[in-house]
Amino acid sequence: MRVTIRKIAKDLQLAVSTVSKALSDSYEISAETKRRVLEYAEKLDYVPNLYASKLKQRKSGNIAVVLPEVADSFFSAAINGIESIAQTKGYHVIVYLTHEDLKKEEHILRDFRGGRVDGVLMSVSAGADRNGAIHDLCAKKFPLVFFDRACEGVEAAKVLTDDFESGYKATQHLLSKGCKKIAFLGTSENLEIINLRGLGYEKALADAGIKLRKEFILHCNNSEEASYSIIHKMLCAKNRPDGIVGSIEKLTTLSYTICYDLRLKIARDVKIIGFSSLPFASLLNPSLTTITQPAFEMGRTAATLLFNILENKKNEVPNQQIILPSSLMERSSTRK
Amino acid sequence: MRVTIRKIAKDLQLAVSTVSKALSDSYEISAETKRRVLEYAEKLDYVPNLYASKLKQRKSGNIAVVLPEVADSFFSAAINGIESIAQTKGYHVIVYLTHEDLKKEEHILRDFRGGRVDGVLMSVSAGADRNGAIHDLCAKKFPLVFFDRACEGVEAAKVLTDDFESGYKATQHLLSKGCKKIAFLGTSENLEIINLRGLGYEKALADAGIKLRKEFILHCNNSEEASYSIIHKMLCAKNRPDGIVGSIEKLTTLSYTICYDLRLKIARDVKIIGFSSLPFASLLNPSLTTITQPAFEMGRTAATLLFNILENKKNEVPNQQIILPSSLMERSSTRK
Repeated sequence: MRVTIRKIAKDLQLAVSTVSKALSDSYEISAETKRRVLEYAEKLDYVPNLYASKLKQRKSGNIAVVLPEVADSFFSAAINGIESIAQTKGYHVIVYLTHEDLKKEEHILRDFRGGRVDGVLMSVSAGADRNGAIHDLCAKKFPLVFFDRACEGVEAAKVLTDDFESGYKATQHLLSKGCKKIAFLGTSENLEIINLRGLGYEKALADAGIKLRKEFILHCNNSEEASYSIIHKMLCAKNRPDGIVGSIEKLTTLSYTICYDLRLKIARDVKIIGFSSLPFASLLNPSLTTITQPAFEMGRTAATLLFNILENKKNEVPNQQIILPSSLMERSSTRK
Repeated sequence: MRVTIRKIAKDLQLAVSTVSKALSDSYEISAETKRRVLEYAEKLDYVPNLYASKLKQRKSGNIAVVLPEVADSFFSAAINGIESIAQTKGYHVIVYLTHEDLKKEEHILRDFRGGRVDGVLMSVSAGADRNGAIHDLCAKKFPLVFFDRACEGVEAAKVLTDDFESGYKATQHLLSKGCKKIAFLGTSENLEIINLRGLGYEKALADAGIKLRKEFILHCNNSEEASYSIIHKMLCAKNRPDGIVGSIEKLTTLSYTICYDLRLKIARDVKIIGFSSLPFASLLNPSLTTITQPAFEMGRTAATLLFNILENKKNEVPNQQIILPSSLMERSSTRK
C-alpha cells in the first residue's frame, strides 16, 4: 500500500495539514513536530506524490534537453556539460530526442507547457523555423535557451559557435593544402548553422578567386542510404572534387566509407575536413582533420544561462547570444 | 494569461465539470457539447495542466531510460531501438544518465515512485547491486525491464546478451590468431556483464591449457586518466601481452591511443578485439575486430517487454529473461 500523508497524520495523531506543512518545512510548524513527522515519514519510506505536491509549487525539478540525436559526438559531449551544471543545482536533466522529426519535436514541446519541466535547452531539428510550438513557447517567455542549432526568427537566449568563420577556415585550410575543387556536404532541410557554414565556404572560394560549382554543394538528407548514393555519385564522376568539407559528423564518416569502397585514397586523392567532436578522430584511418566545437563548454554555458533565467538574476541580459569559437585540429586526412 | 478550464467554462457558459468531462471524452457529455468545447479549447490553444490531470489517471505517458552514458555506441543505438517501439505506443522516452554514479542512480529512481514515469528501462551502473532503490522498485512491482546490464539478485524482466560466450569467443579468436599472452580489460567496480565476459575469457584460456596471469586482468575505472596509466603500464612492461580483449568500448579505443603513443603496431605487436557497436569500427586505423551486441534489437525487445507489462498482457511470462546473441566481426586489428 502506498504511504500517504493521511496515513502519517493518522498514525501520529496529527492533522493532515500539519503533516503536509511539516513535510514542506513550513514556519508554522514547531521544530519538534517537524522532526517527528520527518522521522516517521522516513521510516515508512514515504515518497511525496509528485503531481499533488508540484501542483502548488509549479516546479518540477527537471530541465529538458531537446536534441536531434545522441549518436553525434557533439551532442553527447554537450549533455555532459549541461549535467555538470544541473547537478550543482539539484536538477534532473531529461533528454528528449527528435530524430529531426518536426512533428515529434512539436509534440514534445507542446507537452512542456503542462508543467513537466521548468526550462528547456534545445538544439533544433532541421526546418524548425516551421515549428509553431517553438514560437509559442518563446512568445510565452517560457525559460528556453538554444545551443548550437537555434531557431530562426525567435527571440531567445542562444549559445552558438562561429559557424560562418569555421566554414571559411575549413575551406581555406583545404585551399592551402592545394585543393582546387572543393565540395561542401550539407543538409537538404533548412538549418541555419549549416547555411552559415556553407556561406563561409562560398566566401573562402570567392576570396581565392575560385568559381562556385553547384554540383559540388550537396544536399544530403536524414537517410544514410540516400546520402550514401548522393556522395557516391559525386565521387564517381569524372570531374570529382579533390577536397571535401563535411558540415555534419555522420556525412564525414560516410565519406570515409565511400572513399574506401571506391578505393580512393583519402588525403592523396580526396582531402577531407569535418565538423566533429569525435573523441577518436585521431584513431580514424587516416586521422581526421576537424573543426571542433567546444561541445562540453557550450552545454555548460547554455545550462548556466538557463539557471540564470530560472533564478531570475537581476543582472541577466535577456535573450543574450553567446558565441564560443571552434578550433581547427589538423590531422592526416588533409595532409599534402 | 494561462487558459484554464474555468475560463473555457465561463466563456461557453457551461459548468466547469462539464468542460472537464468533455475534455476527457466522458460518456456523460453529448457529442455536440464535446465538439463545442474541443473547438473552443483548440482556438484558445488550451493545454491541460499535467499535474492536475495526471493526478486522476496516474499515467504520465512517459517511460524512462536510465543509462550510464550516451557516449557509448551501444547505448545510443539501444535508445533508437526503444524509441522505435515507444513511438508506436504514443509514449515519450526520457533519458536519464547516471554516469556510473550510484548516488545519482538511486536519486533518479526514488523520484520515479512519485508518478513521473509509468515504467523504466534500465542498464545499471557498476556496483548497482548495492542500489537500494532498485531493490525497492522491484519489490513494489514497479514496471521495470533491465537491458544489457541487469542488477544482480533482483527479480525483473531482463534482455541480455551472451556475455560469457562472447568473452570466450573473443579470447578464442585471439588464440586462433597466434596470441599466447592475452590481457582482459575490465572495470574495477562489480558489474555482472563484465564478470561474465571475464569468466568466458578465463575458460577459453583454461581450455587452451594457458595459465591465467593476474597481471593481465586489468581493473580500470571510470576516470580516463587513471585507466590510461593502468593500461599504459601493462603495455610498457617487458613481458607485455600480445593480445587484448577490451570488455568496454572506451577501454578499447583508449588502448588504440596508448599503442599509438608507445609506437606499438596494432595487429603486428598487439592484437585487439573489443566489445563495441561503433558504426565506424571499420574506419579505425587499423579497423577494429569487434564483438557486436545487437544494440538496436535489445532496445526494441526491452521496450516491447515493458509495454507488455504496462498493458498487462495476460500471456506475458513475468520476469522473463531474453538472451540475444552477439556476433564477432573480424577486421584488421586481429589479423595474423
